[in-house]
Amino acid sequence: MTTPDSVTAGLLVIGDEILSGRTKDVNIGATADFCTDLGIDLKEVRVVSDETDDIVDAINALRARYTYVFTTGGIGPTHDDITADAVARAFGVALPINAQARAMLEARWKETSTVVNEARLRMARIPEGADLIVNSVSAAPGFRIGNVHVMAGVPIIMRAMLEALAPTLKGGKKVLSVTIKTAVGEGTVGGPLGLLQQEFPDVKMGSYPQMGNALGRPTTELVLRSSDPVRLEEAAVKVRAMVDEAHRNAGVTAPEQ
Amino acid sequence: MTTPDSVTAGLLVIGDEILSGRTKDVNIGATADFCTDLGIDLKEVRVVSDETDDIVDAINALRARYTYVFTTGGIGPTHDDITADAVARAFGVALPINAQARAMLEARWKETSTVVNEARLRMARIPEGADLIVNSVSAAPGFRIGNVHVMAGVPIIMRAMLEALAPTLKGGKKVLSVTIKTAVGEGTVGGPLGLLQQEFPDVKMGSYPQMGNALGRPTTELVLRSSDPVRLEEAAVKVRAMVDEAHRNAGVTAPEQ
Repeated sequence: MTTPDSVTAGLLVIGDEILSGRTKDVNIGATADFCTDLGIDLKEVRVVSDETDDIVDAINALRARYTYVFTTGGIGPTHDDITADAVARAFGVALPINAQARAMLEARWKETSTVVNEARLRMARIPEGADLIVNSVSAAPGFRIGNVHVMAGVPIIMRAMLEALAPTLKGGKKVLSVTIKTAVGEGTVGGPLGLLQQEFPDVKMGSYPQMGNALGRPTTELVLRSSDPVRLEEAAVKVRAMVDEAHRNAGVTAPEQ
Repeated sequence: MTTPDSVTAGLLVIGDEILSGRTKDVNIGATADFCTDLGIDLKEVRVVSDETDDIVDAINALRARYTYVFTTGGIGPTHDDITADAVARAFGVALPINAQARAMLEARWKETSTVVNEARLRMARIPEGADLIVNSVSAAPGFRIGNVHVMAGVPIIMRAMLEALAPTLKGGKKVLSVTIKTAVGEGTVGGPLGLLQQEFPDVKMGSYPQMGNALGRPTTELVLRSSDPVRLEEAAVKVRAMVDEAHRNAGVTAPEQ
């Protein structure tokens, strides 16, 4: 479904705590929802550990491939927060203390009587040439350099940063979707659905089994996606007719839609 | 922390529904916990869409790099289930109907009076030379070829498959961890923690801010990880002493550990 005018994105989640299982990621789902709302096609996610080489490699792979790259995690004040270092290295630029970032942080520290120290000032180090992304929650900013948007890993801060940068992103054609619920298994609708997919190459059809519903019978949700509302509805009419027939053949009634 | 005898893994999550935000992934966290329990170092996760080229590229990148690769998603009966096709192409082998997989499925279908059709038989297509991974939930098996383990995307089935293949995996040295809770911010402990990290290069120290605790003050959890219990405890003693001093300086009491 990637077309010449489609806007794509890659997400890089950075942090040992995700890979060890200690923290369960919620930023992938939030970024996916955010992109879908803006008509941006999230094409790939990677999760890597707090190792500079791995972060640099992933950033360079993703920024060459997609319209936008988002990163989450590793921009705090401790020694394991190395995302800014890795981004600066990926772009071949210096990582000085940024005066505007420092001013934002110092204003917040003054309010909260927080001591300025070397660890905290790490958060004002911003790659040369980057723009800041405002952090309305805890002041320490994210930044954008080239097509790479660097955000915090703490979910509430990450979501605030996504909201802050939304107006700066161009959206693609919004992808619309129709969900059709069935009371039969994937194996029953799989054959005819495949034929309908061939008839509508511009409407992407997905099939998702739902385990353990009340009747003890697997049901299936069919999701149709397209940026063309007319073709989407044409496809939906045919898929609904196919599902109705499958229900009649199986002697079951359609679930509530 | 990757040593010559460490056992590593990469996870590939396959499915448009994760990248659109429609389904929120839980398999990454489950696989991370599983690997940590077995002493396997999960180094990287990728999420890609239901496009054969993307799946093939990711499988080939991950299987060259890590001891084990796990995949989830895309092994059902519908046209968008193309993981087996992609794995067969990545390994350059054929994808015939596997007699053992077909027998497993037909036994289940007989019990549940399910009609055998072409869509359902897709689930018996297994790359040549692969071993089956038993699916105790819905019968359709996963498979292992080379170092790649192909599992279902439905979380309950994926977890059952992980359990089934656990005895076939070699674990690394189990990584132990100690968590130390503090009542001060990351910026306060960041400096001294960085120095302690230099003193203990074999004990990985992570720092994780906890937002919005009852007192309205950010607290921080410090997590120390090592496969050497003696060094881990030596490091923990020093980190606890550092944290105690930070608490005294800030005039706060330590949170419950």
